[in-house]
Amino acid sequence: MSVAKKTRVDAKIGVTSAKGFRAGAATCGIKASGKPDLAVLVCDVSASAAAVFTTNQVTGAPVQVSRAHLAKRQTMRGVVASSGNSNVCTGARGLADAEEMTGLVAREIGCPSEAVLVASTGVIGRFLPMEKVRAGIPKALAALSAGPKADAAFARAILTTDTHPKQAGTRVRIAGRTVTIGGAAKGVGMIAPHMATTLAFLATDAAVEPAVLRAMLVRAAGATFNCLTVDGHMSTSDTMVLLASGLAMKGAGPIAEGPAEATAFEAALTAVCATLAHQIAADAEGGTKVIDIRVTGAASEAEARRAARAIADSPLVKCAFFGEDPNWGRIVSAAGAAGISSTGDSMRLVLGDVLIFERGTPVGANRKALGKVMKAREIAVHLDLGAGRGESRCLTCDLSYDYVKINAEYTT
Amino acid sequence: MSVAKKTRVDAKIGVTSAKGFRAGAATCGIKASGKPDLAVLVCDVSASAAAVFTTNQVTGAPVQVSRAHLAKRQTMRGVVASSGNSNVCTGARGLADAEEMTGLVAREIGCPSEAVLVASTGVIGRFLPMEKVRAGIPKALAALSAGPKADAAFARAILTTDTHPKQAGTRVRIAGRTVTIGGAAKGVGMIAPHMATTLAFLATDAAVEPAVLRAMLVRAAGATFNCLTVDGHMSTSDTMVLLASGLAMKGAGPIAEGPAEATAFEAALTAVCATLAHQIAADAEGGTKVIDIRVTGAASEAEARRAARAIADSPLVKCAFFGEDPNWGRIVSAAGAAGISSTGDSMRLVLGDVLIFERGTPVGANRKALGKVMKAREIAVHLDLGAGRGESRCLTCDLSYDYVKINAEYTT
Repeated sequence: MSVAKKTRVDAKIGVTSAKGFRAGAATCGIKASGKPDLAVLVCDVSASAAAVFTTNQVTGAPVQVSRAHLAKRQTMRGVVASSGNSNVCTGARGLADAEEMTGLVAREIGCPSEAVLVASTGVIGRFLPMEKVRAGIPKALAALSAGPKADAAFARAILTTDTHPKQAGTRVRIAGRTVTIGGAAKGVGMIAPHMATTLAFLATDAAVEPAVLRAMLVRAAGATFNCLTVDGHMSTSDTMVLLASGLAMKGAGPIAEGPAEATAFEAALTAVCATLAHQIAADAEGGTKVIDIRVTGAASEAEARRAARAIADSPLVKCAFFGEDPNWGRIVSAAGAAGISSTGDSMRLVLGDVLIFERGTPVGANRKALGKVMKAREIAVHLDLGAGRGESRCLTCDLSYDYVKINAEYTT
Repeated sequence: MSVAKKTRVDAKIGVTSAKGFRAGAATCGIKASGKPDLAVLVCDVSASAAAVFTTNQVTGAPVQVSRAHLAKRQTMRGVVASSGNSNVCTGARGLADAEEMTGLVAREIGCPSEAVLVASTGVIGRFLPMEKVRAGIPKALAALSAGPKADAAFARAILTTDTHPKQAGTRVRIAGRTVTIGGAAKGVGMIAPHMATTLAFLATDAAVEPAVLRAMLVRAAGATFNCLTVDGHMSTSDTMVLLASGLAMKGAGPIAEGPAEATAFEAALTAVCATLAHQIAADAEGGTKVIDIRVTGAASEAEARRAARAIADSPLVKCAFFGEDPNWGRIVSAAGAAGISSTGDSMRLVLGDVLIFERGTPVGANRKALGKVMKAREIAVHLDLGAGRGESRCLTCDLSYDYVKINAEYTT
């Protein structure tokens, strides 16, 4: 996720900053709280579309419907998203409801319903209150506009237990034109994405062929959202959509894989994704700290990935960070159980800038320096397995009383 | 773990109930709390020995020393255990310390140090305070005796954050003799055993060849301790030892694999292990409920095992149980992400005796009945994946504020 440091990512750039996009939101009553719960993102032209979805075998009706639409066509006109109810485990009725949502948007903007994607997030196993959704979609469409207010309304209407909206974007020069990428994401719990996170929407005015766009999105997700875990629990609704209108690149050919423009665009895209992923980690349910875990020296990249993920998902490790307790044996033991070939004897552990453990023995770290590392809002963990060149990274948070509170009281 | 219901397991039978065994304990000051922290179990004769250890790649010095001793001989005279410091990640000095502990016991009881096993539990990454251990071992040996007091002292001296000792045993008729199996275990956190749990000691006066004893212990652990998870974090110190003195079966040949006696003995052993594993789940750090998860209808046993473990280890599922919130979508979604081939459309979920979800759709369960199920101290979860005949079971607990409290404050 180091790309974020090189490319300048701007939190003021949102889903409608790229040319051709408008967004609208509404409160239709899916959420009992009375907060906004319906969002629409529309492109004035047919946009190249790419999306990645959860790899959970249990998928929501919106994921199934969006996948089916993308199997039929590679360009899209819009996305409709609802929050407060994920429309998952709802059988044939759920599929019909998700399909109807795309149809309601399509009729209004003048396109086939297959040209609209759908995403929902919230509680699993309840039917959507469709009478409310049917009334809400025209309201959201009536509010369609571009600019900071529309960006903010969209980003807010896709949230569930998030404490604040997540938005990021950047501008990059491609073929002599300024191209914009802007996006919004949500998610603070049930976060352990694989191929995507739980709802992220990105819009760009670059011109990119759908196949190229998809390859870039998959790689960007792999380097950012897929390195994120809040609680190791993969959602059934993970959906990440990228729409490219091409309107900033009129007269220039689309970006193809390979040349310098592709590299510049993908770096910008990855930077935006990294920033959104970091915002999710920082707003994790009950989280008080962001933990950035780096595993190096693994016998393979797969071993590095397993070790980093095991450390990030260990409740013992997470509680120690919450307690600001440098109980580092939990980090080493989590890695050791992750199906790796290294033993403790070859490992080296650094917390922040403090070396703690090397060649199987504690090095007598300065406890005062260590105490300072543990008190920070962001903590870097670097475990070298001393076996090879495999590397991986995982971004997570600590485990606090508030995580338990939020998740013990969620549906009741 | 249903065996426990058939065989009568008695909590009054402990590690010295079988003929030939004596135990002693002492407080030597490893624990700052001033609680007992040193325990010795000794057999008057050479006992057939079997042990299973953690499969974590990072293992403690005691695990390494015990493995080396068992590689050299198949009979043992005793075990020495300490609590409050696990002697893990302590390099060459840790190995020498563990070896010295076995030597101190061996010298006193008159055997080679290889005839003594060693186990330690507690914080990782600190050297044992050997001056205290050297003074403590003779104290524990001086206290060696048999009977309820010795059983209780042993069971207490191996605890860490456990709130109460864990002890169980049974008696079974073998070849016309009454054979006793008694044991003690510890562990309430860092519990996700694979081949053993974090310290369990079993003693029997049955006559069993070491190879047969080991095969039985591995199967018993697989059916009981290995189905247990508190926090999905495998310990570096997991050690389960079974010593068989043979003293109840003088004149009868040892139990061999196959005949009815073997079946009876193994059933009794499994029943004792199941009871100890259940005691660990019931005393889990911060746990307020025992959750018994059964997955059936999986495409393979491996899929069933992965699904059961994923449900048991999901912090979202565990928090829902703590909140007594029937947020069952979390159960289904955890299974769906566990690398199984079934989708939600073939699943069937029953909580307690209430059917909730079938063929991809909620069945409109009676919320009052469901509320009653969720309020119980023990909750049965039955998820059928509708794909095949693979089955597995996992015993776990909920995730409460107290788990966070205990584990945020452990070493500081």
